[in-house]
Amino acid sequence: MSAERRSRSVTRADVARYAGVSTAVVSYVLNDGPKAVAPLTRERVLDAVRVLGYRPNAAARALSMGAADMFGLLVHDNRNPFFAELCHALDQASADAGRSLLIVNSDRTQISTSEQIRDLASRQIGGLIIADVLTASEQSLVESLGIPTVVIGQFGETDGLASVGVDFALGARTATEHLIGHGYREIAFAGSAARYDERERGWRDALTAARLPLGPLLHTPFSYQGGYDAAVRLVEAGGMPRAVLTASDQIAIGMLTAFGERGVRVSDEIAIVSFDGTVTADFVWPRLTTAAQPLQEMAEAAVQLLGDPDAAADHRAFPTRLRIRESCGCTL
Amino acid sequence: MSAERRSRSVTRADVARYAGVSTAVVSYVLNDGPKAVAPLTRERVLDAVRVLGYRPNAAARALSMGAADMFGLLVHDNRNPFFAELCHALDQASADAGRSLLIVNSDRTQISTSEQIRDLASRQIGGLIIADVLTASEQSLVESLGIPTVVIGQFGETDGLASVGVDFALGARTATEHLIGHGYREIAFAGSAARYDERERGWRDALTAARLPLGPLLHTPFSYQGGYDAAVRLVEAGGMPRAVLTASDQIAIGMLTAFGERGVRVSDEIAIVSFDGTVTADFVWPRLTTAAQPLQEMAEAAVQLLGDPDAAADHRAFPTRLRIRESCGCTL
Repeated sequence: MSAERRSRSVTRADVARYAGVSTAVVSYVLNDGPKAVAPLTRERVLDAVRVLGYRPNAAARALSMGAADMFGLLVHDNRNPFFAELCHALDQASADAGRSLLIVNSDRTQISTSEQIRDLASRQIGGLIIADVLTASEQSLVESLGIPTVVIGQFGETDGLASVGVDFALGARTATEHLIGHGYREIAFAGSAARYDERERGWRDALTAARLPLGPLLHTPFSYQGGYDAAVRLVEAGGMPRAVLTASDQIAIGMLTAFGERGVRVSDEIAIVSFDGTVTADFVWPRLTTAAQPLQEMAEAAVQLLGDPDAAADHRAFPTRLRIRESCGCTL
Repeated sequence: MSAERRSRSVTRADVARYAGVSTAVVSYVLNDGPKAVAPLTRERVLDAVRVLGYRPNAAARALSMGAADMFGLLVHDNRNPFFAELCHALDQASADAGRSLLIVNSDRTQISTSEQIRDLASRQIGGLIIADVLTASEQSLVESLGIPTVVIGQFGETDGLASVGVDFALGARTATEHLIGHGYREIAFAGSAARYDERERGWRDALTAARLPLGPLLHTPFSYQGGYDAAVRLVEAGGMPRAVLTASDQIAIGMLTAFGERGVRVSDEIAIVSFDGTVTADFVWPRLTTAAQPLQEMAEAAVQLLGDPDAAADHRAFPTRLRIRESCGCTL
């Protein structure tokens, strides 16, 4: 690109002069209205915009109109397949509401999550979506900003902030009951050590209600590697359980890898049901039976909450839907 | 959050008045300098910021300083694992350069890619990163904007724009040679129908140089489903090849699923080598031998090109690195 085109000081007046029209006509062309512009005039204006390298300035527009046509999304790590799908669903839902979505990762090593939040807030965003676990001080910061905010995909309600999630306990309970329905007696759980992870509670409740003993409890990180390590621990401990409920598809996929490597047959020797319902769960073998989170509905609810000033601290919990595939022992 | 806190018209002067300090002191606190502020004064200022709901305004700052501390990234679909990892690498590289990264998906159904590009440009970004295939008119638009731009992860050079990629042909050739080295004689290729996909050429070149016939050529979309469908076609056609090179990890993973479902053993019956080197390729069974793209180096090069006015149309091609796992028939 040429240096001449890089000038940052080109104004709407320059465009108008070059095109031989009024600045109002330039506005009509660039904003598609409110008045119609003759096709040839329109061409002349667009040509002037191109030749002069004019950039209508969203920053200036945001200031003069008080508009904030952008939502900010804070996500811990966009590579996690579940959050990647959630980001994409939120992008679509934001687009439906006529908004852009500024996606920011909070796992940057160079700056703190608080700084990321402050940075987003300073960009005149019209709403903030948090797909991450906040510390108490980060949450205080968010509350002090005065920006409509919604927390998505985390556990239960977040006091003082609107939130959207699923009923983790019920989803895990239903998934465990499916394994019990297969006749399995010893059912393990692999998930995070976080006490607030209600999936572990759902697993316990299902086993207790069925008067079954608790199977092995494997606390492990939410990652492929976490699942892999948990499966290795299970195999090396001897006395494998007959089935396992995992707190995420990623953990289940990591377990599949370790079991495959060791010649342990899923589902013949150990059945698996997982949680999330990501696309990847359908492209492993055996395919994963999984408690699917309704991401599109959750995303739409989040965007709706941002636009509703009365929803300040509402919590909307969606039910999961058990997507039956082969990993649990079902034959399709 | 309370309605009182939502006021958008709170100024730095209001904060200064409430805290009983000068506006300069408010600036020092919010910008961490240039002058030091006594801890108690600092607390008073932060308290005023919180109580009044003051938001330092990046839009106003961008206008007054002429700064553009944000890069824009256009990606086709952030859910694709390869591009998810690329986004994350670019986020880290941008952070290293002191920039935020505004990630935008170009597959929004509601608005065109050109509109997405215009929207990004109007946000006073300091650089534009394109991780997508542009049409000729989209590229003209980008060139007319006068924003430093770099194309990443696409094929070959992009006339008129700086670009960063890998040597696809060499990577595919090396991968195919690895399969030939295993003694396999009939080697298929599964990839896109795009004529500019140089991976297909690399596969052809390796087979031709080894005086081997071309194996089956499977054109299929870049997705899990695309790989799944290609494998089903291979199996149903009968006379399976002994090995296959795929143009992406996603295609290979979809093939693994279809082969697993049909009881075809990878690598005993059909060996696979793929392309990309995503994390997921290491968490399937058998693990994928894959021509890995050096994402972090590519991301750093892209950010560097954005800051170099003389690099307008440079192309930087990195070599891939063959990551050996079990899918090719190697035993580790």
